[in-house]
Order: sequence, then structure tokens, then C-alpha cells
Amino acid sequence: MTAEKNGKAFRYKKLAEEIASKISNGTYRPGEKLPSIRKLHRDSKLSISTVYQAYAELEKTGLIEARPKSGYYVSPVSLESLKAPRHPRGSSRPTRVNLDAMINSVVSAINNPDLLPLGSSTTSPELLPHRRFSAILKTLSPRKIRSLMPYALAEGDLELRRQIARGTVGVLGGITPNEIMITNGCMEAVFLSLMAVTRPGDTIAVESPTLFGFFQLIRELGLFVIEVPTDPVTGLSVEALEKLLSSVNIKALLLIPNFHNPLGALMPDEKKERLVRLLEGREIPIIEDDICSELYYGSRRPSCLGSFDKRGMVITCSSFSKTVSPGIRVGWVIAGRAFMEKLQRLKAGTTISTSTLDQHLVTEFIKSGNPGRHLRSLRAALKKQTVRSALAVQKYFPEGTRLAPPKGGNLLWVELPEGCSGLDVYEKALERSISILPGIVCSNSGEFTNHIRIGCGFPFTEATEKGFRTLGELVARAN
Amino acid sequence: MTAEKNGKAFRYKKLAEEIASKISNGTYRPGEKLPSIRKLHRDSKLSISTVYQAYAELEKTGLIEARPKSGYYVSPVSLESLKAPRHPRGSSRPTRVNLDAMINSVVSAINNPDLLPLGSSTTSPELLPHRRFSAILKTLSPRKIRSLMPYALAEGDLELRRQIARGTVGVLGGITPNEIMITNGCMEAVFLSLMAVTRPGDTIAVESPTLFGFFQLIRELGLFVIEVPTDPVTGLSVEALEKLLSSVNIKALLLIPNFHNPLGALMPDEKKERLVRLLEGREIPIIEDDICSELYYGSRRPSCLGSFDKRGMVITCSSFSKTVSPGIRVGWVIAGRAFMEKLQRLKAGTTISTSTLDQHLVTEFIKSGNPGRHLRSLRAALKKQTVRSALAVQKYFPEGTRLAPPKGGNLLWVELPEGCSGLDVYEKALERSISILPGIVCSNSGEFTNHIRIGCGFPFTEATEKGFRTLGELVARAN
Repeated sequence: MTAEKNGKAFRYKKLAEEIASKISNGTYRPGEKLPSIRKLHRDSKLSISTVYQAYAELEKTGLIEARPKSGYYVSPVSLESLKAPRHPRGSSRPTRVNLDAMINSVVSAINNPDLLPLGSSTTSPELLPHRRFSAILKTLSPRKIRSLMPYALAEGDLELRRQIARGTVGVLGGITPNEIMITNGCMEAVFLSLMAVTRPGDTIAVESPTLFGFFQLIRELGLFVIEVPTDPVTGLSVEALEKLLSSVNIKALLLIPNFHNPLGALMPDEKKERLVRLLEGREIPIIEDDICSELYYGSRRPSCLGSFDKRGMVITCSSFSKTVSPGIRVGWVIAGRAFMEKLQRLKAGTTISTSTLDQHLVTEFIKSGNPGRHLRSLRAALKKQTVRSALAVQKYFPEGTRLAPPKGGNLLWVELPEGCSGLDVYEKALERSISILPGIVCSNSGEFTNHIRIGCGFPFTEATEKGFRTLGELVARAN
Repeated sequence: MTAEKNGKAFRYKKLAEEIASKISNGTYRPGEKLPSIRKLHRDSKLSISTVYQAYAELEKTGLIEARPKSGYYVSPVSLESLKAPRHPRGSSRPTRVNLDAMINSVVSAINNPDLLPLGSSTTSPELLPHRRFSAILKTLSPRKIRSLMPYALAEGDLELRRQIARGTVGVLGGITPNEIMITNGCMEAVFLSLMAVTRPGDTIAVESPTLFGFFQLIRELGLFVIEVPTDPVTGLSVEALEKLLSSVNIKALLLIPNFHNPLGALMPDEKKERLVRLLEGREIPIIEDDICSELYYGSRRPSCLGSFDKRGMVITCSSFSKTVSPGIRVGWVIAGRAFMEKLQRLKAGTTISTSTLDQHLVTEFIKSGNPGRHLRSLRAALKKQTVRSALAVQKYFPEGTRLAPPKGGNLLWVELPEGCSGLDVYEKALERSISILPGIVCSNSGEFTNHIRIGCGFPFTEATEKGFRTLGELVARAN
């Protein structure tokens, strides 16, 4: 028996190696279909289960992927075939924020339903659990609705905070409902956190590039901003931050460690820990935007900075906007006692409380809507759409274009060939009814002029394919 | 015919005068039932229609009131029988806000469901249209729910803004949906308005006393505050404000002209116009909180300051919290183009947008839920509860207590006899499971030590009556 098992293990591993080398030497190219299990079984004379195990082994390494009802494919994007964008060195001087006019134009393009929505970071409503919500709404009793009439507590519904606390098991250890406050989405969580840890005139550090909405927040709060160079694959440069700290008085760090917007970057655990140690030593609070971490393509949800926090200096902000619905405004902030008291006071003073109905719906969805199944299919769909979009960039964009392989979320950060203006491409694309995000709005430094962000939250259709071809032509012409 | 009509007019006026004099001389006392129409008809030999006309005439003057299915009563509260509280002269120096610890204690008492809720300014859920909401939720199609999944526009749902614009007809003239932005309740509207017109370090003027939540907002925004003496009956003193303006640089005025919180004061139209003219001459923006104006006891909704605005300097904030539900977070802000652009940018930057589901529910309620009928019964209930509460104060509180007759909303501002501490009464009342609001938290000046605010949003039951008796005893003992 054991000999037989060993023999079989040897056989499937040998087959896996053979296929891997055929991928490396270009016999099978990224995105191409591999022979079916039945065909390999016939051709190789190996058993069906051996062939299956070989494919399963390769799938684990990420070299190939299974597509339901279609078979096995060489993974379309790999670190080998893609070149990650580079990041500029950044400035070491705090600046006032000044991006208004451009952001207004970009936001209205993002929200224009007549355009191909490659500028948006949102998810197609088709992928959100509207059927479950419909069912839950039908079951609401008049008595329940009466109970939803008064104000919610400033800190939010206890049952919802319990559910969120349960959801952090394995990610944030022993979080209790008292360390969670419900907000109107993740942006309010970030906004209140910034208000809690800064005063007007303070300087805060952000990644460069970062979510353009952060600059609006920072400006309205009368803060200065300093941008820290950030790698499109591994996130914020801890070394660069450390160097900045020696010359600039930074009051807080605001960042997106998991599936960064716009980069898609994922900070490795080792770096996360180093970052938390660096800032806790200087008693500088960290505000992390953790909104995308459920949208992982790998085997598990990435850790958040809060899980490395030993001294209550990390505030974790998130929401259901990416996984449930952005229209239903339910987000949350996780913080220790030191910050939570202030956060609750700020919440009570600014928006008083979060919608009782929205909170109840989300609570019911978590409790009875099979959110695990929903998340699995959402992740699969986003991965598929994003990978196909990355392939389309590879296929249609001219040489010199750089793009890191996506690891989660639904965004692609594309570095156009040198000298090609992302803003030009954005404007020309608008004329062709395509929205994209010009990279320049993701920084206050004037950098990222030849970058664009592409959102992949909507199904990849023929129109999308055509859109990418058009974009590729525009880039080639602008070059 | 004409002689007969004149004779009849003479007869009913004579009867009305006779009854009025019997009320004046104490034959009929405030709150007492008057003889039925049928009885007066029998006793006086006057026709039923003459008696009816006499009562209708007296009702117009406010001296008596009709209660459905019950008959006519002497108005329980009248300017003759009640003495309005006085207002201190106020300070002319801007101050930093510092009310924290007390407000925390007060807020948790207000929200404690185990207490008799005389501290709260909210309305009983029984009086809110939960049955209509229940019916509307049942009719939501899955397709509609799918359409509610994405973000709402920052400025809010167009159909809802249209409905709100229609609701301002006769109050705010030609407001268009573009001059309206939807918010998470009235407090966010006020918050964003303050952010739009001030910078940290600026001084803003408020009424003294005012809504205690305003002080929290002002503090968090790094603003200074100056309090303007405010009359418990007619609102803010325009003369006092004018005097202040000569010595202090005020960047904005934030006030509640209609059914003031905590005073219940209603600013007369003449004074409203004078106030708007005074500030527009100096280009100082006015932010008015108009949240209670639908809760009038008289024959029509009072005007808002915005209706006197000729130069776009008035920002009007309101919400459905008092009339529909505070849990469903839908408020709005009305402003001219100069401020609206900034308000929309602030909204997009802080909470992005307001819940799509909450907005849709309120829109449907306005369109199909017979809101007019709901408002009529809500007003009748609040008037009844508030008047009964005023009567209870008259009955149980010791001599030296002052209280203005309520004209709208659901609040009573009670001046306790000199030397009696509102804070003491608040603390002793808590021990007896009764919440009230100590007046001292409604100012940053340390004034209003012998004042309390009583909320009358909940049905007046035997427990309420007992609660007022207990409060009266506590006040008498503290005196």
C-alpha cells in the first residue's frame, strides 16, 4: 500500500514538473488552456486521479488555475510575465492639499452611468447580495420596524458589533464589541479617526500614491500631508518612512496595507510588523483602511496591522461597501479604549448615529444570509474580471507599459510608457465614453503623470474588451 | 336677511364675550371643560349654530381649544397664567467649549430606556409612521433593491430632493432640487455647514441657551463660540447681537428660530427679517436649524430665515428626524450656489453619501404615505402631551417656577425658583428613575443653573403624572 502510494506521489509530481517546465519554456503561454484531464490520462497512460493530483499541485503554486466547467489554464498573469510599475522617490516636505478642479471632473466621470466604468472602484450591483436583502426586507415585522424608528446608539447596534467581532477571529484576536463603533461607511470611520488623533495644522503621512478621497479629507480638516514612497507590490516603504520621521513631526500615518487603492499592493506580514513596531516606539497612531481585505485571491484573508498592535496605537477602519453594498452605509472602526471614547463623542457630535435600518439589514444578512458563500463567489468573480482586465492591458497596451499582477480587490495600477500622459489618455478616453482614473489625482505631489488606475468591478464583456483595445490605441498614440 | 345675520353676529359675539369674561374671572379655569354646545343651546335659548360660532370665535383667539370627540376646553396654558423664564445677559467674550463630562452623563441618562424619558427631545416611536414604512418595505421589488445597492449621489436622490423642494412651497419660495443636499440627519447638515463657512480658530455666535450638541460640534471643529442672549418666547436678541458685532469678529451665526431647543421660543417674522438684514449687510452667513418647524400648534408652519434671504447668505438645515424617524437618517441642507458646491465636496469627502434605502423609504412615504394626515395627528399628539406636561409643572412645582406657554415642538424650558440647582434636581431625579436635562449643559457660560428642559415626546401616562409630582417635590426640597 505505502509503496503504491509513494509510487503514485512520485508519478503525479513528475507530471506536474513536466507541465511546469513546458509553461516556463513557453510551450504553454499565460492564459492558454491546458490539456483536459481525460486527454492527459489517455496520452500519458497515467490514472485520472494522478493527472488530477498533478493539476491540483500546480494550482496550489499559482502557476495554473481551474476555471469551473472549462478546465485548467496557465495563470494569465504571473510575476514573470508582468513588470510592476515603479514608484517615484517622493518629497520630504509637508504640503497643503490642492487637487480640487481635477478631482471634481474625475468624480463626475466615475459616476457617469453612460461611460464604460473602468474609472470606478465599486463593484457591480449584480455581484452584491440584493436578492438576500430583498428576502430579508420581506420578513421584517411591523414590530421590528417600530423598534427601528428611534436613534441607534452612537456606537452602533450591539448585535452587529458582536457579528463584526466574530468576523475578526483569526485576524484581530480578542476584539470585543466595545472596541467597535459603527459608522456611515469606511470613509466616516477614517474621517472620525483623523479628527480623533490630529488638530488643524498637524502633518499626517500617507502612501504615495493613495486614495484620492483622503486628500479631500485632509484638506478639509486643515491638515498638512506628507507622502511616503510606496511599492506597487509590497506597499509603503518602512525605510523611507523611518527616514522622514527623523526630520518631520508626523502626528499619524493613514494607509491601506491590504489591496491598496490605487496600487493593489499587499504589504507582507513581516513588513506590517516592522511598521507597527516603528510607530508604536514613537507613539504615532496608525489609521489603517482595511476595506478590501475580504477580497483576497489567495487562500486566506491577509492580516491587518491591528493584529500586530500591542499598545493600542492602531485604529482599523473598514466597511461592508465592497462586500455587501456601498449604498447601504455601514462601516466600522476598531480602536482601543484610548481612542474609542473620543471616536464615540465625535460620532455623536457629527452624524449622531448610523441608520438603524441599514444596520439591521446587514446584521440579518450576516446571521442568515450565508455570507460565506456570497464572499466566495464575489472573490471568484472579481478575480476573474481583474485578471482578464490585466490580460487585456498586456494584449492591447504598447511596450513599456508596466502592471503588477493583482492579488486581491478589483484595481489595476498601470504605468504607461514614459512620456505618456495619463491625464491625456483620461481625457481622450472620456471622448470615447470610457472612464478611467488618471494617476495624478492619487497624489498631491504632481507625480504619477504617466499612470492610470483601472477598476474591474464590473463583468468583463465584449464592450470591456473593446474598451481596452481603444485605451491601448490611445496610449500608443499619446506615446 | 342682512338684519337677521347682523342679529346673529351680535348674539354669538355677545356669548363669546360672556364666556371670555368667565374665563378671566376664574369661573372656568385653565384646562377645564366648557359646557357642551347642546347644553349652552338649552340653557341660553340661542341656536346651536350661534353657540358653535361663539366657541369657534374663542378658539381663534387661543383662549379655548376643541378636543376631538370630547368638546371645548379652556386653553390649559396661556400667557396670562404662565410667567416666561428670564434670560441672563450673557458674556461678550468668545470662549473655548468645555462641557464634556457633564454632557456624557446627560446623554447616557437621555438614552437610558429604564428611565421616565423627560430628558429626551425625541418622539415616541408610537407616534412615528412605522406602519406605513412596514407597508412600503413589503412592496419593494428585487429590481428596486438591486438599484439601491450602489452609492447614492453625494447630493442625494433627485426624486427626494424634488419632494423636499415641493414641501418648501409657501415657506421658501422657488427652491430647486439643485439647492438641496441630502445628509445623515440635521446634525450632519449643521456640521457640514459649519465646516463650509468657518476655519479653525474662527468665532461663531449661537443662542444662549442652545442645543447642547452644537457645543460638541463647535469644539471638535476648533472654533470659538460666543453666546447671544435669547428670549424664551421670541428668540435671539437682535439688539444684543448687533452690539456684539461691533466688538467681535463673528464668522457665522448658528441658531434655531422655530420652536427652539431647549427654549421652545418662536421668533416673530418681523424679528427674522431684521436679523437677516443685519447679517447680510455684514456678509455673515446664517445657519438655521429648522428641524421643528413642522411641529407647530397654531394654524400654519412658521417661516424660516431662508425666506427673508435675498443674497444667498442663509443656510437652512432640517431633517425628517422629528416627523418621520430619527433612526432612518435622512436630513437635508438648503443653500445657494456659493455654499452648495463646498457642501457637496465636504459631504463626498466625509461620509460620501446618505443611505440609498433610507432615502428611498422617505421618498415613498412622502409620495404615497399620506404624510399630511400623519403630520396632523403627530402635531395634535405632541401639542396634547406638551400642554399636559406644562399643566403638570404648574400643578406640582413650587411658586417661583417660570415656564413659557409652548407654541410648537415638544419641549418645555422651566426656570426653577431662584437658588434651586437644576443639576441637583437632575441628579436626584435620576435616583428616582426620571431623566430631565439640566439647563446648564445648554450653555458654555455656566449660566442656567436653575433651569431644566423637559421633553414631552412620549404619551402622558399615569407614570408621567407621578413623575411630575416627584419632580415638583424634588424642586421644592432643593429650594
